[in-house]
Amino acid sequence: MPDSAQLPSEKTQTKLEELRVTTGPLPSSRKVHVAGLLYPELSVAMREIDLSPSSGEAPLRVYDTSGPYADPQAAIDITEGLPQLRRAWILARGDVEVAEGRAVKPEDNGLRRGEKSGLVEFDRGGRAVLRGKDGAAVTQLAYARRGIVTPEMEYVAIRENLGRERLKRAAGGESFGASIPDHVSAEFVREEVARGRAIIPANINHPESEPMIIGRNFLVKINANIGNSIVASGVAEEVEKMVWATRWGADTVMDLSTGRNIHTIREWIIRNAPVPIGTVPIYQALEKVDGKAEELSWEIFRDTLIEQAEQGVDYFTIHAGVRLPYIPLTASRVTGIVSRGGSILAKWCLAHHQENFLYTRFREICEIMRAYDVSFSLGDGLRPGSIADANDAAQFAELETLGELTKIAWEHGVQVMIEGPGHVPMHQIKVNMEKQLEECGEAPFYTLGPLTTDIAPGYDHITSGIGAAMIGWFGTALLCYVTPKEHLGLPDRDDVKAGVITYKIAAHAADLAKGHPAARERDDALSRARFEFRWRDQFNLSLDPETAEKFHDQTLPAEGAKLAHFCSMCGPKFCSMQITQEIRDYARTGMDERSRAFRAQGAEIYAEAPLPAGK
Amino acid sequence: MPDSAQLPSEKTQTKLEELRVTTGPLPSSRKVHVAGLLYPELSVAMREIDLSPSSGEAPLRVYDTSGPYADPQAAIDITEGLPQLRRAWILARGDVEVAEGRAVKPEDNGLRRGEKSGLVEFDRGGRAVLRGKDGAAVTQLAYARRGIVTPEMEYVAIRENLGRERLKRAAGGESFGASIPDHVSAEFVREEVARGRAIIPANINHPESEPMIIGRNFLVKINANIGNSIVASGVAEEVEKMVWATRWGADTVMDLSTGRNIHTIREWIIRNAPVPIGTVPIYQALEKVDGKAEELSWEIFRDTLIEQAEQGVDYFTIHAGVRLPYIPLTASRVTGIVSRGGSILAKWCLAHHQENFLYTRFREICEIMRAYDVSFSLGDGLRPGSIADANDAAQFAELETLGELTKIAWEHGVQVMIEGPGHVPMHQIKVNMEKQLEECGEAPFYTLGPLTTDIAPGYDHITSGIGAAMIGWFGTALLCYVTPKEHLGLPDRDDVKAGVITYKIAAHAADLAKGHPAARERDDALSRARFEFRWRDQFNLSLDPETAEKFHDQTLPAEGAKLAHFCSMCGPKFCSMQITQEIRDYARTGMDERSRAFRAQGAEIYAEAPLPAGK
Repeated sequence: MPDSAQLPSEKTQTKLEELRVTTGPLPSSRKVHVAGLLYPELSVAMREIDLSPSSGEAPLRVYDTSGPYADPQAAIDITEGLPQLRRAWILARGDVEVAEGRAVKPEDNGLRRGEKSGLVEFDRGGRAVLRGKDGAAVTQLAYARRGIVTPEMEYVAIRENLGRERLKRAAGGESFGASIPDHVSAEFVREEVARGRAIIPANINHPESEPMIIGRNFLVKINANIGNSIVASGVAEEVEKMVWATRWGADTVMDLSTGRNIHTIREWIIRNAPVPIGTVPIYQALEKVDGKAEELSWEIFRDTLIEQAEQGVDYFTIHAGVRLPYIPLTASRVTGIVSRGGSILAKWCLAHHQENFLYTRFREICEIMRAYDVSFSLGDGLRPGSIADANDAAQFAELETLGELTKIAWEHGVQVMIEGPGHVPMHQIKVNMEKQLEECGEAPFYTLGPLTTDIAPGYDHITSGIGAAMIGWFGTALLCYVTPKEHLGLPDRDDVKAGVITYKIAAHAADLAKGHPAARERDDALSRARFEFRWRDQFNLSLDPETAEKFHDQTLPAEGAKLAHFCSMCGPKFCSMQITQEIRDYARTGMDERSRAFRAQGAEIYAEAPLPAGK
Repeated sequence: MPDSAQLPSEKTQTKLEELRVTTGPLPSSRKVHVAGLLYPELSVAMREIDLSPSSGEAPLRVYDTSGPYADPQAAIDITEGLPQLRRAWILARGDVEVAEGRAVKPEDNGLRRGEKSGLVEFDRGGRAVLRGKDGAAVTQLAYARRGIVTPEMEYVAIRENLGRERLKRAAGGESFGASIPDHVSAEFVREEVARGRAIIPANINHPESEPMIIGRNFLVKINANIGNSIVASGVAEEVEKMVWATRWGADTVMDLSTGRNIHTIREWIIRNAPVPIGTVPIYQALEKVDGKAEELSWEIFRDTLIEQAEQGVDYFTIHAGVRLPYIPLTASRVTGIVSRGGSILAKWCLAHHQENFLYTRFREICEIMRAYDVSFSLGDGLRPGSIADANDAAQFAELETLGELTKIAWEHGVQVMIEGPGHVPMHQIKVNMEKQLEECGEAPFYTLGPLTTDIAPGYDHITSGIGAAMIGWFGTALLCYVTPKEHLGLPDRDDVKAGVITYKIAAHAADLAKGHPAARERDDALSRARFEFRWRDQFNLSLDPETAEKFHDQTLPAEGAKLAHFCSMCGPKFCSMQITQEIRDYARTGMDERSRAFRAQGAEIYAEAPLPAGK
C-alpha cells in the first residue's frame, strides 16, 4: 500500500499533518538511478520491476514519471517542495541572474484588495527568482544551437534508452518518416532540439523537474490536465492530482485552474512537481479582469506571463493563431469555438475589432519566454469541437498561422510545440499530422485526443484514445489525455487515473507501431509471464497492477489461484495455455520423427519445430 | 428505471418470480416499427430518441438490438420465450420439414447417466425441430443465389437504413474498396448475400431472432461473448447477460459456456434471444469426453453439431484450419496457441498424428449446417496471443486454409464468415484485412479486437478497442468485443456493458470513417445538443445515457444545472460555448459591416459569415 505525506488544504489549513499525497512504490518495483557519462553526477531515475525467480529473467526497466514520490528512500515533505535537481546545472551555465521578482498581488489569486486568500502560502524560503542576464535566451534550444550538450540533454538521452544497451537492434514498424535511432545519444538529443524537432520544457525557475523530451523521434508522451474551477476543487486535491497523475505515467501536467487562488495553488503544484507544468495564462489574465474578455489588455497579459514565468511554469499555451479574419469562419460550425482560450480571444477581437494582441505582440512574448526558458505550446483556439467541424477552413487557417509563429519563436531561441485537435473521424486524422509537419517545420505536435466520434459522453477517454493512438503512430509527440468526465464535469481521482492509463496505452501502442526499439520488451515480458502462469509477474508488469490483481481476484480470490495453471475464464480442463505447453513438449521430443513420416505422406506446408523462444 | 421480468435460475429453480431480466426503454426512447414494401407484414423494430421541444428537431432514429425487452408494449415472459417472428416466413418457403429431433442426453449437460441437472428445463411446447427437406440448403445464401429476396433480406434492408429517405446523400470517408450504397435496397442485400460478401445468420430453429446482416458494405456490427465455465456463473446470469448485452448494442451473442448444464442454459438463451447466437461446438464435444481432447471423435462432434443446430444456434465456430502441419509453426511462439478450440484440436492432431477431423470432414459438416442454415464462423485457432506472435507463419497458413474452406462451404450453399486476430500492433493490422479479403473471396471478417499492446490487463477493452476501430474501418464486418476482465477472469454485468459500449464506439467510429451515409446524424445531433446546452438531449443521444447523466451530476447534481448554460468544467465565466453564441450573434449582425472595413485594411484571409447551420 502506498504511504502518504503531508499537504496543506484550503479547508483545514492548520492541520497539515492530516493531509496526504500518495507515495510509495508500485508492486515489486524499485527506483534505480543511472549516472551520466558526460555528466557523471547525473542520477537518472527509472523504475525496475522485479520478476519472480522462476522466470529466470532480469528485472524489467521502465520509464518512470513518478519522481521521488515512488521512492521509499526519498524524504517527502510537501511544505519543503522537491529537491532542486537542476539548480546547480542552471547556475553553472553562468547566464542567469537573480531577479527581484514580481510581488504577488491580490488579483493574482482573484482576490480584492485586502481580502484574505484563506490558503496557506508555500514558503519559498531561499528560492530566488532567476532570469536570463539582459534577457538572453537561456533555453535548451539556444544551447543546442551553440553545440552545447546540457545536463538536461544527457539526462533525457539516458532516460529514453530505458536501460537498453547501446545499439540494440530495432524492432520493425512504420514510422511515417520519423528518424528513431536504435539508441539515443546525448548528441542526438542536442541535434533534435537544435532543429526544433523536439523540446525539453525546462523553466529555469522549476529546477525541481526531471528533464524529459517531447519529439516524434522519442517515446510518445502524455499530458494530464488538472485544475480547479469556480465550482469545484481545492489546493489539496490539485497537488494530489498532480502526484497521482505522474504516479500512473503522466509525463507533463497542465494546471488549467480558473477561479480563485490560482497563484497560490500553482505555487504548491510547481514546487512539488517532478514533471514539467504547463498553463494557459489567458485564463488567469481573464480572472484579473473579472471575466470580461473585452477588458483584457496586453499589459495585464504581459504581467501574467512574467508572474507565471517567475513561478516556474514550463510551457504556456498561447492562442496567437486566433486571428480576427478567421473568426467568421467558425460561425457556421456545428459547435463554433470550443477552446476556452480561443473563445476568449475571439470575443476580445470582436469587441475591439482589432487583431488578436497575442499575434501582434508575439515577438514581445518571445522575449519574455526566452529569458526563463518557457516553451510555447501554440494553442489551437479554433480546433473542431465535433466530427462535423473537423479539418475545416478555420482550423487549417489557424494552423498555417501557427507555422508562421513557430518560425518567429525559433528566431528568438524559444522552444515550440503545436497544439492540435480535438474531434476528428479516423479517416481525417492523418492529414492533420501531415499538414502540421509541413506548416510547422516538424515542431512537435501536441494533440487533444482526437475523439473519433461524438456519441459517447462518459467514455471520451476511449473515443479519444483511439484517435490518440493513431495520431501518435503518425508522429504526434505529446498526447493530451481526455478523461471519462470530458464534456460532463471535472475529473476526480478515478477519472484522472482512467485518463492517464488510457493514454499510456495509446502512447505505447504508437511506440510499438512506430517501431521504437525499446517498446516491445514490456509486451514480451508480460506475454511470457501470461503464458507461464506467472500471475504476479503479469500483474506487476501491467500499467495498472492494482486493477489487474483486483479483477483476477474477483473470480478466483485465493492466493493459491495465483499459482494455478488455469484461470476462471476457462477453468482447468480447457486451458489453451496448458495445452500449448503440452504441444511444445511434444514438438520438442516427438515431432521430428513424426514430422518426417508426415512429410513423407505429402504434407504441403511444413516447418521444422524450433526450440521454444525465451528459455 | 428499467422494469424486470421473470427468469429461472440454478440456485432457486422453484422461485421463478424472484428472478429478473432487464426490461424497459432507455431514457426518452420509443420502439418504432417500419413495415416492408415487398412484405408489408414486416414490422422492423427501431428506436427513436425524442429530443426536447426547444431543439426543434425530429426524433432521431437509431439501430436497435434490444428486441422486445426495451418495448413497454411487449409482454415479456421468459418461460414462454420470445415470439417466433420468423416462423411463418420459414414455413412459407415450403422447403423445411418437421424433424423427429435428437433426444437430449445426460452428457449434453455434462451429467452422468441418471444424474439430475438441478436446472429447470425450458418448456419448448409446440416448437418442433425443423430441417431442410432431404438435406436441402435452406440458407439465405441459397435463396439469394436463386434470386429470391426473402423477408429476412427486406427486414435487414429496412433496418440498415435507420429511417433514412431513399438516396440521401452520402458523407465523405475512405472505405478501402467497400461499396457502401447511399440507401440499402432489399435487392442489394440479396446480391451481397449471393456473392458471399455478407451473411444473415438465421437458423430456421431460431425464429425468435430479428434478422441482421454482417458484411463490409453494411453497418459494422459487434459481438458479445457470454458463457459460464466450471468455476463460475449460472443460467440466470447468462440469460440476463444476453439481454443486458443486447440492451446496450450487441448485434450477436456467442455462448461460450463450458462446464455443466450447457445444453439447458443454451436452450434458455436461444428461446429468449432477439439476436443471432453463436457457439463453439468443440467446447461441448470436449465436455462429453470429459475434457480429454484425444478422445474426441467425428461421431461425437457430429452429434453435437446436430444437437446445437436443432436448438437453433445461428453460427458455429469451426476450427477446421488448424491443420496438423501448421502446429509446429506455433512451437517457437511467445504465447503458443491461445485459442481454446485451436489448442484442443492441436492436441487431438498430435495425439493421433492425424489431420484435424474438422478439416477432413469439412464437407460433411457443410451438409449438416446447410439443412438448418447455420453459418460458418471459420475459427482462427492459430491466432496470435501476443504482439510478438502477430502475423506469423502459423496465423497466415491457417488463413489460407480458411480461404480454401470458404469456397467449399459456398459450394454447399452455406454462409461463411472468417475469424481474425487477436493481438496485433497497429502497423500490422491493415495487412490482416487485405490478406483476408484476398484469401477468402471477400467473405465477412470477424475479429477479436485486435489488441494493440499486451501491457494493460484490466484495460483490454481499450487496448483492443483501438485495434477494433481501425480494422472495422479497413473492412471488418463484425467486431468481437473484449471486456476489461480479458486475461483475468469472467466478465460480470458491468464488464459486459463496458465491453459492449467500447465496441459500439469502435464500430461507430469505423462507420464514420468509412463514410456510412447514416452514421454522422447521431454525432451531429448530439453535438448540436451539446452546443445548445440541451443537457438532457446530450445524455439521451449518447450510447450510455445513464452514465453520462451520472457523471454530470457528480459535480452539478441540481436539476437546474441541466438547464444551465455552463458546466462544472469551466464554470459560468469561462464557458467557450456561451462565448461562441455571442460570436455567432455578432457575426450575424455586426460582422458584415466591420468585415468590409477589415478587408479594406488588407486582411488576407476572409470568408463571409454564413448563418449558423441546423437552425
